[in-house]
Amino acid sequence: MSNASTNMRLKLPLICLLLQLALIILFAIFVRYDGDTDPKEWFRRKAQENVTNAENEFYFRYPSFQDVHVMIFVGFGFLMTFLKKYGYSSVGFNFVLASFSLQWATLVQGWLHGMKEDGKIHIGIESMINADFCTGSVLISFGALLGKCSPVQMLVMTIFESALFPINEFILLSLLQIKDAGGSMTIHTFGAYFGLVIARVLYRPQLDKSRHREGSVYHSDLFAMIGAIYLWMFWPSFNSAVTTLGSAQHRTALNTYYSLAACTLATFATSSAVNEEGKLDMVHVQNAALAGGVALGTAGEMMLTPYGAMIVGFIAGVISTLGFKYLTPILDSKLKIQDTCGVHNLHGMPGILGGLVGAILAAMATKEVYGDGLQDVFPLLDNERSAKQQGMYQALGLAVTLGIALIGGTIVGFILKLPIWGAPADTQCFSDQPYWELPDDDWGHGEMVPVKIEEVEKLT
Amino acid sequence: MSNASTNMRLKLPLICLLLQLALIILFAIFVRYDGDTDPKEWFRRKAQENVTNAENEFYFRYPSFQDVHVMIFVGFGFLMTFLKKYGYSSVGFNFVLASFSLQWATLVQGWLHGMKEDGKIHIGIESMINADFCTGSVLISFGALLGKCSPVQMLVMTIFESALFPINEFILLSLLQIKDAGGSMTIHTFGAYFGLVIARVLYRPQLDKSRHREGSVYHSDLFAMIGAIYLWMFWPSFNSAVTTLGSAQHRTALNTYYSLAACTLATFATSSAVNEEGKLDMVHVQNAALAGGVALGTAGEMMLTPYGAMIVGFIAGVISTLGFKYLTPILDSKLKIQDTCGVHNLHGMPGILGGLVGAILAAMATKEVYGDGLQDVFPLLDNERSAKQQGMYQALGLAVTLGIALIGGTIVGFILKLPIWGAPADTQCFSDQPYWELPDDDWGHGEMVPVKIEEVEKLT
Amino acid sequence: MSNASTNMRLKLPLICLLLQLALIILFAIFVRYDGDTDPKEWFRRKAQENVTNAENEFYFRYPSFQDVHVMIFVGFGFLMTFLKKYGYSSVGFNFVLASFSLQWATLVQGWLHGMKEDGKIHIGIESMINADFCTGSVLISFGALLGKCSPVQMLVMTIFESALFPINEFILLSLLQIKDAGGSMTIHTFGAYFGLVIARVLYRPQLDKSRHREGSVYHSDLFAMIGAIYLWMFWPSFNSAVTTLGSAQHRTALNTYYSLAACTLATFATSSAVNEEGKLDMVHVQNAALAGGVALGTAGEMMLTPYGAMIVGFIAGVISTLGFKYLTPILDSKLKIQDTCGVHNLHGMPGILGGLVGAILAAMATKEVYGDGLQDVFPLLDNERSAKQQGMYQALGLAVTLGIALIGGTIVGFILKLPIWGAPADTQCFSDQPYWELPDDDWGHGEMVPVKIEEVEKLT
Repeated sequence: MSNASTNMRLKLPLICLLLQLALIILFAIFVRYDGDTDPKEWFRRKAQENVTNAENEFYFRYPSFQDVHVMIFVGFGFLMTFLKKYGYSSVGFNFVLASFSLQWATLVQGWLHGMKEDGKIHIGIESMINADFCTGSVLISFGALLGKCSPVQMLVMTIFESALFPINEFILLSLLQIKDAGGSMTIHTFGAYFGLVIARVLYRPQLDKSRHREGSVYHSDLFAMIGAIYLWMFWPSFNSAVTTLGSAQHRTALNTYYSLAACTLATFATSSAVNEEGKLDMVHVQNAALAGGVALGTAGEMMLTPYGAMIVGFIAGVISTLGFKYLTPILDSKLKIQDTCGVHNLHGMPGILGGLVGAILAAMATKEVYGDGLQDVFPLLDNERSAKQQGMYQALGLAVTLGIALIGGTIVGFILKLPIWGAPADTQCFSDQPYWELPDDDWGHGEMVPVKIEEVEKLT
Repeated sequence: MSNASTNMRLKLPLICLLLQLALIILFAIFVRYDGDTDPKEWFRRKAQENVTNAENEFYFRYPSFQDVHVMIFVGFGFLMTFLKKYGYSSVGFNFVLASFSLQWATLVQGWLHGMKEDGKIHIGIESMINADFCTGSVLISFGALLGKCSPVQMLVMTIFESALFPINEFILLSLLQIKDAGGSMTIHTFGAYFGLVIARVLYRPQLDKSRHREGSVYHSDLFAMIGAIYLWMFWPSFNSAVTTLGSAQHRTALNTYYSLAACTLATFATSSAVNEEGKLDMVHVQNAALAGGVALGTAGEMMLTPYGAMIVGFIAGVISTLGFKYLTPILDSKLKIQDTCGVHNLHGMPGILGGLVGAILAAMATKEVYGDGLQDVFPLLDNERSAKQQGMYQALGLAVTLGIALIGGTIVGFILKLPIWGAPADTQCFSDQPYWELPDDDWGHGEMVPVKIEEVEKLT
Repeated sequence: MSNASTNMRLKLPLICLLLQLALIILFAIFVRYDGDTDPKEWFRRKAQENVTNAENEFYFRYPSFQDVHVMIFVGFGFLMTFLKKYGYSSVGFNFVLASFSLQWATLVQGWLHGMKEDGKIHIGIESMINADFCTGSVLISFGALLGKCSPVQMLVMTIFESALFPINEFILLSLLQIKDAGGSMTIHTFGAYFGLVIARVLYRPQLDKSRHREGSVYHSDLFAMIGAIYLWMFWPSFNSAVTTLGSAQHRTALNTYYSLAACTLATFATSSAVNEEGKLDMVHVQNAALAGGVALGTAGEMMLTPYGAMIVGFIAGVISTLGFKYLTPILDSKLKIQDTCGVHNLHGMPGILGGLVGAILAAMATKEVYGDGLQDVFPLLDNERSAKQQGMYQALGLAVTLGIALIGGTIVGFILKLPIWGAPADTQCFSDQPYWELPDDDWGHGEMVPVKIEEVEKLT
């Protein structure tokens, strides 16, 4: 049952402990409370600047943060439990990767964006949301590799990805000064292509030995629906969590809400249409119906109009479902990319779509439409940049993201290929067995099947 | 396995696409951002009216909205997964019906309540909540028909119900000027009787051919508990989501909280008492325990007092449990109403109770009790109406609701009876098989049973 | 199947009805709306004190309340569904116990803390959170006894525990004037040791007759992960729900977030390290990873610093995992404490750790660090007490809590031992069968196992 090469007893404890100790030391050196979490500074501001408790950033953003948090831990975690024999790993590795990533991202994002004059990173609710966002990207890449890597491999990937994500984010948001509040580019496109190119490098020609475990069983699909529905419901919070306060946040949530609704109808329509018996496919429902959220990650706060949001969501649902049906098999057979969760369909293509929609909307922005709210969404417009220029910068940001994801992913892929991280054998993919203690009489696990009723009658 | 008549390949894609395209066109014509989501208008108000970001309606209502959203998609969706072989359909059809309904309801509610002088519907967080509310009513009706209709039938029903709901709502809230913030009448009574009368029209005398699939299995009941508990927890948010801000919203949440707690004890007591071995029944726990929320949908914001809320919840729990035990079988055998989820017990009777409690409380309203908050709850009192008149109008609203639900449901029932919507055969009810791709080795599905341990020992 | 002694038909309905009727009467006598829920008083304050709707306590605390509510009903409820044949009872008894407890706690907490000059208890959102907190303590004790008691026994326990909890809380918070916003002492330490000492009194030497049902099956562990993840995600809301508004609430959420993340890495490291094949254990992941939240229940609002929070979380994760591996078996075999859910590891030891960390942090508090926010956290400091004195009082509070829990639990244990409450026989423990109607073909229940694939091939 167990296998020397996948035995994690030394590797996993060691990497977890070393990473956590390093994080604690780095936090001790660099991280401090910000002006809304530090009592001294908060009471100084209350006394000198007349701020009230209601103006503490906590009350504006904490509900959105918790929705994002649920998406990261329950949404991603349970969405991946669709595999029949990989439920513990899906939700468990999701848990540990996210717990590491949110700490590490706090540091790297802080070094790049959040250093104050005292040389310290000052943290509060907004940095917590941003750390969760970076974590989302890691979990997208995890989806491409699901079932084919050890937890140590995934932690090593996270070390690199949670460092590269803030660098790409810094280039886009700070250097190029572009908008991407819900992360169509920084989170979805980046996470998807970073993971896909790693999957390419780690291509397993002998994966057929584990393919019988690659599907779902009836109840595993219901667990996956828990994840899918939570992602779907809270996507308006995700896209609006770090937009500017007021109408921008409100509008982003509203646009995402209608985009997702239209996407769901498009997904059901397409899923039924591409099946020869007209039957719906759970894979499409769990994934493609979410593409309308991904596709609004850039333009959600812009003046997309509600029907514009619905059009984008509709297109995202159609291309995502078609991707699952026709593109994923080609990626696998021709391009040698084994994309377990179909992240190319849910995050890759809809992410690019979202980036492009954002570029177009930015190029169309006018004072007439936005009124005095124009700089609220595009701070440089009317002064330093024309709308068209902003649109071009947005498109450039998409190209940069793809470049960094592909190059970074390739390098990290070769690092993960080193035979020291305890990767499962080709016969052990999509199985919890190498890494988890399993119940003796594990229903739905092991090489067991239920027996047809007639067979039972023969016996009794 | 498949069946020509239930093949959805043409029908389902066609109806989804046509509906979504129609919605997009109608949104393009009619729907605009409101003053809290439009940047131009918001910044005009910030400049001219000194509003602050904290006063954007988003911050008052978005957390409540998300709780309601969870109830609609996870609450209703998973509550209906109790059926052993209908889990995909329960959560999947719930998903697509709700996604369509919330868009369509936005339009119809807008046409009736929300047209501004520019001839456009202006939307924001409050219209999103109201669209979700209308959707709740559709899902209640869906519960009465669960397992016996095709997704196309359900979409056709939704077209009519999401149009009729706003009409009834308009008559009650705008014409009769009555209060029903949590929808005891507009949502629960309407949705239940609309669905029940359709179930009557679609009565299947041969349903016994599928009855062996009508129950639960062990784990499907646990999935259903996820839905039930989320409904229970967030019901205070549901009843208070659109009340006036301040003490009314606060009080509504508090009243609902205590009503539900009392209802739960009443449900456990009654469930055990009516079982000959004193055993509890999961159906009661999943459903009747929620009746205390339904019953506070009208009076939740009124001066019910906490103990008054507990009394109403207690009564709701008892009558709902007794309904499941004694009334549902009679509805089926005598009245030919096959009510799959028992919506008559959870939404019908408690909805009527809630409407009546609201009428009584309204008739008892005095300036002495409400102080200057009287018009906050009852805008017409002390001026245009006496409390007794308000109570009479409330009761009239309940009668109107029942009338519209029964007449509307009958007509829609006959439309759904047309043999063109792909309804499942009597032998195919309560089964995902006609409409979903299923895993090959579907645990808990197909005609399979586990084998007793002794039988295995014989084999090995 | 059924057993006279466990037949609940008389006992359970009777106790539920009597308790609920008593609650209604006591609420009628004692409970009134507070100044934020009563319309008369609210509109008086709006008129005379210029308060705005945004200042209603509801908008500051309701999102936190709902997160706590989810932890109580979904978090605790589903965490305990890990037992293979006790899922209905875990989530169902959790439901009814919590529903009773939150009403009863409202009264007792009100009598002790919340009586106004009119001799009435005035309730609103903060009392709702506190009632949920007391309920959390009851559910911790329930975890120690899980599967070995009847619902009537548990209700009797709750009568006493929800009365004793407010007394201990009153001594700590009002008499000793110590801080414990997230309840390391009042909730976790109290609930754990109260439950453990009851488990000691109810020790079953013959429990081996039911041990084969004490473990999990594959899908029951996934249900339990739903509970675990919700507890983990919302713990920042739990610890911050009743802190003072502004930076204190914000800081508490932030500290808890980082503590939990560090705790999770510590848990995975330790779980793998103590397994001879390096495999992870679901019990640890579901429980020990939460200890970082428990351990911040006292110090979360103090100036722990983010890295300090991570150190505390790290230590909590290690000792909790080691407790599950090495201490639980010793408690069972040597001390005769059968702790079903391992509450000693998740709530007992981390609760004590949290109380001690709070005492140390309090003793270290200085004006230099807290600025003018010092009295916000420690109202008595700089005036009536020195920081060291405050630290001593905090430590005294921990000792008082342990004393009350141990003495109270012993007495209640002997009351529960009376042979009149319908306790299950030694052969019936960890089984839903005595108390629930079960599906006929109950997958995952009954003495059934799946059959290996080779056996099926022999048959066909």
